[in-house]
Order: sequence, then C-alpha cells, then structure tokens
Amino acid sequence: MQTRYTPAGVVSDLSGRIQRDSEGRLQHLITLEGLSRDELNALLDLAQFYVRAVGDLPARDQSLAGHTVANLFFEPSTRTRVSFELAARRLGAEVVNLDMQSSSRVKGETVLDTIYTLQAMHADILVMRDAEPGLPAFVARQVAPHVCILNAGEAHLSHPTQGLLDALTIRQARSDFSQLRVLIAGDIAHSRVARSAWQALTTLGIGELRIAAPEDLMPPEGEFARAVRFSDIDAAIEGVDVIMALRIQRERIIHSQIPDEATYHRTFGITEERLRRAHPDVIVMHPGPMNRDVEIASEVADGPRSMIQQQVTNGVAVRMAVLATIVRNVQARRQF
Amino acid sequence: MQTRYTPAGVVSDLSGRIQRDSEGRLQHLITLEGLSRDELNALLDLAQFYVRAVGDLPARDQSLAGHTVANLFFEPSTRTRVSFELAARRLGAEVVNLDMQSSSRVKGETVLDTIYTLQAMHADILVMRDAEPGLPAFVARQVAPHVCILNAGEAHLSHPTQGLLDALTIRQARSDFSQLRVLIAGDIAHSRVARSAWQALTTLGIGELRIAAPEDLMPPEGEFARAVRFSDIDAAIEGVDVIMALRIQRERIIHSQIPDEATYHRTFGITEERLRRAHPDVIVMHPGPMNRDVEIASEVADGPRSMIQQQVTNGVAVRMAVLATIVRNVQARRQF
Amino acid sequence: MQTRYTPAGVVSDLSGRIQRDSEGRLQHLITLEGLSRDELNALLDLAQFYVRAVGDLPARDQSLAGHTVANLFFEPSTRTRVSFELAARRLGAEVVNLDMQSSSRVKGETVLDTIYTLQAMHADILVMRDAEPGLPAFVARQVAPHVCILNAGEAHLSHPTQGLLDALTIRQARSDFSQLRVLIAGDIAHSRVARSAWQALTTLGIGELRIAAPEDLMPPEGEFARAVRFSDIDAAIEGVDVIMALRIQRERIIHSQIPDEATYHRTFGITEERLRRAHPDVIVMHPGPMNRDVEIASEVADGPRSMIQQQVTNGVAVRMAVLATIVRNVQARRQF
Repeated sequence: MQTRYTPAGVVSDLSGRIQRDSEGRLQHLITLEGLSRDELNALLDLAQFYVRAVGDLPARDQSLAGHTVANLFFEPSTRTRVSFELAARRLGAEVVNLDMQSSSRVKGETVLDTIYTLQAMHADILVMRDAEPGLPAFVARQVAPHVCILNAGEAHLSHPTQGLLDALTIRQARSDFSQLRVLIAGDIAHSRVARSAWQALTTLGIGELRIAAPEDLMPPEGEFARAVRFSDIDAAIEGVDVIMALRIQRERIIHSQIPDEATYHRTFGITEERLRRAHPDVIVMHPGPMNRDVEIASEVADGPRSMIQQQVTNGVAVRMAVLATIVRNVQARRQF
Repeated sequence: MQTRYTPAGVVSDLSGRIQRDSEGRLQHLITLEGLSRDELNALLDLAQFYVRAVGDLPARDQSLAGHTVANLFFEPSTRTRVSFELAARRLGAEVVNLDMQSSSRVKGETVLDTIYTLQAMHADILVMRDAEPGLPAFVARQVAPHVCILNAGEAHLSHPTQGLLDALTIRQARSDFSQLRVLIAGDIAHSRVARSAWQALTTLGIGELRIAAPEDLMPPEGEFARAVRFSDIDAAIEGVDVIMALRIQRERIIHSQIPDEATYHRTFGITEERLRRAHPDVIVMHPGPMNRDVEIASEVADGPRSMIQQQVTNGVAVRMAVLATIVRNVQARRQF
Repeated sequence: MQTRYTPAGVVSDLSGRIQRDSEGRLQHLITLEGLSRDELNALLDLAQFYVRAVGDLPARDQSLAGHTVANLFFEPSTRTRVSFELAARRLGAEVVNLDMQSSSRVKGETVLDTIYTLQAMHADILVMRDAEPGLPAFVARQVAPHVCILNAGEAHLSHPTQGLLDALTIRQARSDFSQLRVLIAGDIAHSRVARSAWQALTTLGIGELRIAAPEDLMPPEGEFARAVRFSDIDAAIEGVDVIMALRIQRERIIHSQIPDEATYHRTFGITEERLRRAHPDVIVMHPGPMNRDVEIASEVADGPRSMIQQQVTNGVAVRMAVLATIVRNVQARRQF
C-alpha cells in the first residue's frame, strides 16, 4: 500500500545513500553528500565536455534520445526550469513541464499518484523543486528502478546541480583547489546554494572555506564543518581567491537586525572597495537572480572579475552531464 | 458567413456520423458511438503495437512527421493534456499548447476564429476538452477536410480515448469479452468515462455490463441500454470480472443524499472486503485522478488487482493509435 | 557597468540603424524603417518560398538547427507567440517560452539580467513583445554580436513581421504596387500594425496610401507622411484595391467621442454595403483577433474578398524568412 507523504514526518536524505542503486551507481541526484572526489570530477569532466563559448552553438547529442523528462516545480524558478529543459532537449529528450503551483494540493498524499502517472507514461526522469525538505528523497524511495529523481532545489538543504556548476566555474578559473581560499558570503543559514557548494568544495579538497554572514543569518554550529566563520565581511574577504555572494531575500533582511537593503549593502555587500582586500585575481560568483546593489554592487556584477554569466553557461553543461550520467547508469542496470 | 457557436442551441453529435468523411473513414474522433467492432479492434490492435513495458523506452515512429497538433483545453486536465502531448511528439509531430482557460471568452462566437487561425498555421489536428457539450461536433462541421478534431473530454457525454484505453486494458487481462461481467461503479450520471466505456464495451460484445450508483447519481432510463442497474454496490459486485470505479466529485456528494466522503466510502467505495464478492481474478480500474479512500480504498488502488497504472500507459498508446489512424485517413483523402 | 533600462528615458529606434551589424546586414528586426525595397523584397521572396496551401503540410527545413529561440512576451499574445514558435520549430530550432507577465517586475533594470542569462544559455534569438516603447532597441544595444532581437510588437510603434505579412498578402493578390490604392482604416493613432504597414508599403512603392480614422484616433500630423487622411470612411473607401481594417479596443471607443461599439460599426465598420464603393476586386485584411461586427462585419470577414486566414498563413512564412535571414547573417559575421 502506498506510503503517504507527510512533510513533517520525513527526514531528507542527507547521507546520499538513497540516491544509489544496488551496485552503488547514482540513480538519483538528491544531494552532493556522499559523492566521492572521483565521482564529482567525472561529472565535472563530462560537463566541461559540454561547455561551449558564448556565441558558439551549444553542444548537442542524442544521449537521451527516446527518454522523457518531466519538470515538477512546486517552487517556481523559470531560470532553473529553462536550464534543465534546454539541457534535456539538447541531449535529444522530450520534455514536459507540469505547473505544480497551480495544483499545490497535488502535494501530500497524492504526489506519488502524479509520479506514478508520469512513470506509467514513460516519463522516467523527474526534475523536482520544492520549498520544503524531504520530497525528493521520499519519492526516490518509492519509484521503480528505472526512474531517476533530480533535485533542482530543496528547501535550504540541497541544490546539487548548483553546487556542481559552482565547482566547475572555480575549476575553470583555478586549477589547484588545495591552494584556494573560497568565501561564501550572505544568508548562509537559509541557503541551499551554500550547503551544496560546501559539500562539493570540501570533497574536492578546497584549501580553505570561509563563510561570512550577519549573526542571525549564520547557520547552527555543527553545520559547515571545518569552514571558518566570519561575521565581519571585511575580515572575511582578506586574501580570498573566490567570492560567492548569495541572494538575500528582502523578508530575511526585515526579520534580521539589519534595518534595510541599503544598510545590508553597506555592511555586507560585495563592493569594488571591498574587493581590494581579496587576492588580486579574485573571481566573483552569484547564483542569480541578483539583487543588484544589495548583496552585490552592480559594478562588481558587471566587472571583469564576475563569473556570473559563465555560471549560467556551466549550469546547462552540468545538467547535461548529470542527465547523461544517470541515463547511462539506467542502461547499465538494464543490462543486468 | 460564419456560424456562431451557442452552446445552448447545439446538440452534440451522438450518432457519430459527423466524424466520418465522405468515404466513411474517421476524420475526427468525437464519440465512440457508431464505430463498428472491427474499427474498435483495429484501433486497439494498433494501440497494442505501441504499448511498451514500464521501464522500457516508449514506442516512437514518424507517423505524424510534419504535422502540428494543438491542444485546446477549455477545461483543464494536466494528465490528459500530457498524455496527448507525449503521444503526438512520440509520433514526430510538433505540439502547441493553448491555454484556453485564461481566455475563456474566446469561446462562443469567436472560438471558430481561433480554430481557423490554427488551421491557417497548418495546425491540423486539434485536441479539445470542454466542460460543456457540443463544441467538438460544432467545430468538426466547420473545418476544412484536412483538419481533424479529437475529443479529449466533453461534458458528461464523451471521452472516446478513455473508452478505448479502458477497453484495451480489459482486453489485455481477459481475451474472451463474451464471457465477461463488467461493473462500472460510482457517479454514472455525470460520467463521460462511463458513457464512452459503455459504448466501447457494448460494441465489443461484453457479456454483461452492470452499472451501480447511488440513486441520485443514476443516469436517466433510456441511457446505458441493456446495462443492468444496481443501487446496492455489494449486490452489483457479485461475481464480476472487472470493476471500473469512477471519480466522485466532492460537490456531487454534498448535493446528493450522502452526507460526506466517509459515508460514500462506507456505502459505495471499492474496498478489499467488497472485492471478495467478485470473481477471484477480478481486475480493478479507475480513470484517475483518484480520491483515495473515497471511491476506492488505497489498498485496492495499490494492490495486485489494480490496473490503474496500466491504464495510464495504455492511454498514451491509444492516443498514438488514434493520431496515426486519422492522419493515415487524411493522407488517403489527399490521394483522391 | 550595466546600463539601466528606464522606459521614460529611452527613445525607440525609429531609424533602424541599431538593427544592423557593422557590415550593414540585419542583426535584429526592430522596425521596418530603413529597410530598402530590395531588402523587403528579398524577405518577401523567401517568405513566399515557405508558403504552402492550407491543407498541405507546412514547409520545414533545418536552417535553425542547433539554435535556441526564446519568446519573451511582456504583453500577452497567444496568436503571435504560437506563430513565432511554429516558425522557429519548423526551421529546426529549440523554443522556450518565458512567461514574462507573471514576473512583470523583471522589467526595468533587471530585464538585461534575464537577457544575459538567456544569452549565457545559448538562447541567441530573443523574440520580444512589450506594451511600452523602447525595450527592443535598448536590449539590442546591449547584447553580444551573435544575439538577435526580434520585435514581435512594441507599443503603438512597430510590429515589423506584421508589416511584412501584410505586404506579402497584398503582393500575392496584386503584382503591380505602383497602381494600388490601399486604405488602412480604424484606430490609426494607437496602431503599430498601421505604422509597420505604412513603412513597408511606402518603401515598396505603393501607388496611394489612405488612412481613415475617427478624429480623435487620427495620428499626429508629421506621422504617415504622404498618406491621404480621411475622417469619412465612405469617402476613403472609394475605389481602393485593398482595405486593412484595424482592431479597435473597447476602451478606446469609450474614451473617444463614439458612444458605443454599435455606433462605431455604423459609422466606421467595414460592411458589405461600404465595400461596393471600393474597386470590384478589392481585398479585405485584418491583423486579428477581430471584433466581429465592430470594426468589420462578419459577412465581410468570412466573405470571398477576405484575406484574413491567408494573412495568418503568411505570418508563419514571414517569421520563418526573418529567422532564416538573421541566422544566415549571424553565420556570415562568424566567418569574418
């Protein structure tokens, strides 16, 4: 009998075991937790293979020919949905978009009926995004062995393809991770981007990871193990090679001790002036969409150190790599 | 001069004559009424050809290459829209989805302008769903000979591809229709699913068709000719080979003499206990989406007798068969 | 640093210089202003190559294979969006639709971030529609040399593919433009359709262009140079070969001196009776969607002189021609 989905009762899969098949291959991608350095590098190598210069035509092949990908975005994100959609179609897949917001009550006990319906229609790759934790791991436990769940953003917990594209962007700019100092700055507490970046970069052996946040946006002790914590952005930025600025939500500012966006920018924004404290070759990243002149100054976002558009290009390439990898693993399971 | 569409003044095509071209071939699929047993079996044979096991890649060919299919859903249904969309795309067609709800006033006199606009763009296969009766037959009378109208659900009257997929599902489980006892249970009065199933199964020579409904959800005498009527579900279920449960709408329960969903389930729901009265090999069907533990117990829906996911798989295959058939008929007309 | 988009401060590109690359080739299509007669005829010739009779399969080739087209409609139009979508897909492109209305605040300073994000995803052809002036030219100034902006409707100013399809429709009916008298009738003041038609037909050497409008819907002096102005529709229609009726918005009627739609129809509508004053072979056009029996009588719209459905067919062909042309120009720039 079908298990009911009750968000309150479900713990998200933080260990990453649920996302592997009986042979240990990735069946789903729910979290970067538990992926080895070799696995991450294999995904990044394949993603790099799919990267093309802006202005060239995008990479295309038929790795997903005959496959159907369904986008189930319970939390809206045009940018991430389009990135997955283009990645899948450039690999030859059919893509269907389901508007899950307009049918939000499909959640809860009946979300599995939607999944099983898609599975019965041979939509075997399900891309899910949700503002609450637990849904991807819950669904992954219930689906047939040929069905793959890709997490496109889960609460504050996990956004694995974002973590991969951030790692790829850093790898393109700097080859030796062991010597790098990376700063993630902003609303760390609520950020799935920060958590997935921390997982990827830690596994890849980054030299030093710093997190900087206003006090009430700092994650609990115990999270972000080995990261060096800063509440002063100017101290945090000293000598770093990479700065990852995070999007700050207006509501979060209001509920913090910071009175407004201008104050946030003055006390925590990534500005040209502050960049002078970093390594001269520092690169600046942002997951988008930006609040210009709040968490990041416009002149930084549009300046020569900005990798922001490269991140978007890498995002499609990383999603192509993930899709091609999980489909290859499905085929390997079939041949058993 | 263009004929105006006025729902009140239009009688739906119940005879099925309007859906045939001058040679008697199917140009449209508006109703299963009037289709011969051979015609139904030819559609089911082709659909069976398109069925693949869940976990295998779906069937694909280029029967609709160069054709454009437009989905016009005046009544929303993500499930049916996606099923038609995947069927068309797996046959090589281009598909465009028009959101007709947000432009509901396009109905009435201007719906034909929308149709003619699509026709002028070479969108020659129009899939329509509407909560009111009459629109598909009205449109079919106005369009050019190369344009095909597929009814994807029309009021309480007709849902021909659902009737076909239900027949296919039964045919996969039991070969000799003449010996079968089939029960359709629930809100028969308002159900296009029941009417299209009745048409298909009657033509295919089903041994005995039973309908069971609470008294105020029973259709008028004169409809469902030769079906045996039951108001007691326990009596109706006795010895049947197939049970088709229908979705009951909460509003319908409220307006009937049944006080609530729990009472409906107790007095009319398909439960494991009730299944014991049926033939030991009984199969259970439901058109979806289910109200679990209202018209059907969750343990039945997820149990070994449930064909519910197989119905979804068959739905795509049946729609592929219908699309391929009407396009073949269009081509035959062109060669004249 | 990124230039901010402030509608008030931006003047739309009326000269057409911004839409050309350094070699003078079309990179964007924002306005028909500045296109030579040879350029217009080359586009119309290619469009004619893509025209197929209704009932035949549409033209298809792979001119846009590997390219990604994004539809950004800040002002909704299902008809124009579907026309561009089918044109692009029939040339082998991938198409993504972005619902810009639901994210209207993306406009203003952040619209460029959306554009740059799409560009970074290799969506290099951006189809834009906006109720305000200036956005297409503003964006065209900012994008990389391989990115193409196609204007799918801009305020009251410009709708270049509509102007082309209108010219193509007239050219199909009458070969010698120099002898033709064309009347554009209705709300000229607010009509981008009228302005783009005027530009195309003037450049193509139309014999006489008349504009007829109620007094308060007449454009300012200085616009529509050389067009003959009429406030009396009966006088305007005398002897014309072509009538282009414009859609009138109910709000515009209310704010003009005309009391209601019936009065508008009586005093300004294109009726069978009025058609008798025109040339016996007159053709009647309308950009759609029509207000039947307001700006045009239903019997005229559906009558033998109506080219309205042909315009829709031509619309897809014209958009294919524009897409194929700008992509050919991008490739020419790459070979430098």
